[in-house]
Amino acid sequence: MHLSQRITNVTGGGSDGWDLFNRARAMIARGIAVTELTIGEHDTPTHPSILEAMHTAALGGHTGYAAVPGTDELRATVAARVQAQTGIATTAANVMITPGGQAALFASHTAVCDAADVALYIDPYYATYPGTIRGVGAVPRAVPAHAANAFQPRAEDIDAAAAGAVSLLVNSPNNPTGVVYGADTLAGIAGVCQRHDLWLISDEVYDTQVWEGSHLSPRALPDMADRTLVVGSMSKSFAMTGSRCGWIVGPETAIDHLITLATHTTYGVPGYIQDATVFALARGDALERQVAAPFRRRRAIAQDILARQNSVALIPAQGAMYLMLDIRATGLTGEAFAEALLDTHHIAVMPGESFGAAAAGHVRVAMTIEDGAFASALAALCDFAEARAGQTA
Amino acid sequence: MHLSQRITNVTGGGSDGWDLFNRARAMIARGIAVTELTIGEHDTPTHPSILEAMHTAALGGHTGYAAVPGTDELRATVAARVQAQTGIATTAANVMITPGGQAALFASHTAVCDAADVALYIDPYYATYPGTIRGVGAVPRAVPAHAANAFQPRAEDIDAAAAGAVSLLVNSPNNPTGVVYGADTLAGIAGVCQRHDLWLISDEVYDTQVWEGSHLSPRALPDMADRTLVVGSMSKSFAMTGSRCGWIVGPETAIDHLITLATHTTYGVPGYIQDATVFALARGDALERQVAAPFRRRRAIAQDILARQNSVALIPAQGAMYLMLDIRATGLTGEAFAEALLDTHHIAVMPGESFGAAAAGHVRVAMTIEDGAFASALAALCDFAEARAGQTA
Repeated sequence: MHLSQRITNVTGGGSDGWDLFNRARAMIARGIAVTELTIGEHDTPTHPSILEAMHTAALGGHTGYAAVPGTDELRATVAARVQAQTGIATTAANVMITPGGQAALFASHTAVCDAADVALYIDPYYATYPGTIRGVGAVPRAVPAHAANAFQPRAEDIDAAAAGAVSLLVNSPNNPTGVVYGADTLAGIAGVCQRHDLWLISDEVYDTQVWEGSHLSPRALPDMADRTLVVGSMSKSFAMTGSRCGWIVGPETAIDHLITLATHTTYGVPGYIQDATVFALARGDALERQVAAPFRRRRAIAQDILARQNSVALIPAQGAMYLMLDIRATGLTGEAFAEALLDTHHIAVMPGESFGAAAAGHVRVAMTIEDGAFASALAALCDFAEARAGQTA
Repeated sequence: MHLSQRITNVTGGGSDGWDLFNRARAMIARGIAVTELTIGEHDTPTHPSILEAMHTAALGGHTGYAAVPGTDELRATVAARVQAQTGIATTAANVMITPGGQAALFASHTAVCDAADVALYIDPYYATYPGTIRGVGAVPRAVPAHAANAFQPRAEDIDAAAAGAVSLLVNSPNNPTGVVYGADTLAGIAGVCQRHDLWLISDEVYDTQVWEGSHLSPRALPDMADRTLVVGSMSKSFAMTGSRCGWIVGPETAIDHLITLATHTTYGVPGYIQDATVFALARGDALERQVAAPFRRRRAIAQDILARQNSVALIPAQGAMYLMLDIRATGLTGEAFAEALLDTHHIAVMPGESFGAAAAGHVRVAMTIEDGAFASALAALCDFAEARAGQTA
């Protein structure tokens, strides 16, 4: 039977970039002890207090259909939080709750792209970005952010790609690079969007994980609120990855249409999960800092280890739960490096190439295992790189 | 800012059919006691044992990303259930878990329809059907199921509409009519799908609510398993409407592509909700019968009341939580009847016209309030109809 071109083309026919990850999982299934530094997921579960709030809400009867746009209370809570963080007037009418950040990315692109429209995204990118754009029937076009510019995208590169595009997807703090976009980068992005009349879709799901500088939301820049859809989520900030609770913040007209779309795509988010989210957000920064603390700590550990050698360079790790390591001194591609490291040391890291051509010659290390094991694995990775670089030199 | 044609056209520019519902809600907000017989939602919450199973799973650590296709255990559980019910070989590879039945409808249409493809559906229809088809960028085409045929769709009517179509969406037990498709109806549907090479999307979310005859899944008919996507859900069968847990059962190739799509649209369903679903399904029929019992009871109450008068005719209420009442003897449209009943008796029922032209002159009554109040409201509705029919005669 014939399937739609859209669904058969989601991956664009290429590798999905998870070959190494899958090989590591297969080794584990065969009983081999592999140190996994591949996945962007906390090594701790959701805090029990959040789960107790969820259970209380469910037993209290919040098990029926929740309002499709989200509960009034959660929409208002997210709006107040965004307004407090950015200074931009934001009400519940600017917020729609979604079943996770990925659903928000898909809905946002559906809202602004028709079939065959061109949608821009920055390379290196989170694995689902081009497929999300293809999934809505649009055409993904990558804009490189160069390693030489510490993976900060440049306005001139976006400008050069913007002809005929309708939207630009950015992500800061960034997965996979760990880079936090600076004020200059964001001003450049805003300028491009205004010159080319682009929607800006700003994925800010790592906004609580900033180790250097501070997170700036481009929606807060002059004249940007009317053309920006911000994607937020509880996944990374509150270790609620499995609970699938996120949101879109944007202009009221766009949100109205997104609610109509949601009535036909997901029909809302469980009420008890939304109540648990209100509970978590009401606890203020303390819990967020607690969730972010291991990554902050491991980043410091990594900086110490990396400072002792010269074969692996650390891209400024300003935010998020990843380190992007430049291993070009070894003479290997990211893929070859990752394959060899897995084979010889049973350590799994993601090849930079899995996240786009611009990350070639790099590997991404997720800081998502216990400190001691993390330090040992990173030290082993550096020793491996030193030995390879020594052969090359 | 420009929004996509697709998102601005989801409702097709017409009324969404919920005017009466919204007016009733506004009256309630003004303090008026309105008896609501509008919504397909149980008057009981999710069973506490299911919520305890959910909480146990969450506290046990199942709070991280669940596998996008669904957990192995839930996929296997659904597959075994479907195979036991239908006799058709079904494995976990034929099942994808979705965040609710609506998400399954949207994903199924995305899988088989490209932009501008024609997708058929039966009128009367559940409110989201045409918008779901528009939401994926396809073109909805209604096929009438006539009141004179007790709303069983006829093969000749589908045949007449099928030229150029790629899919047909059916729903039995049916919302809004309460009709259960018979073996002849389903054989006719299967024949049309084979003659015109159509995908059949079979929405079977009311499969546990059958009061007369038995539920037959068209996937079990000869040569239909390869062209049928079955949509199932925990919402109606286990009073888990808010938990958003459903599934698609279909050919393995289609499921594989649907999993890739889900990676880019929803990224899975909370693991603790899936664990609670496994728990509920493992309890066998007892809990399902308990959830369905109030509707079975109220249907009997309604039959008694309706037997005492001649102005309101009951379409055979064979399944689901609704009664479709023929009020044409009153000389009113369904809309005028519902408006007048709301104004004079503060009883809210849905106009048949909200569910399509084929249901004109009817109203849909949801059996979703306590027995005594339900009986009183239905008796008042009949008295109102008798008085109107008397004026007309």
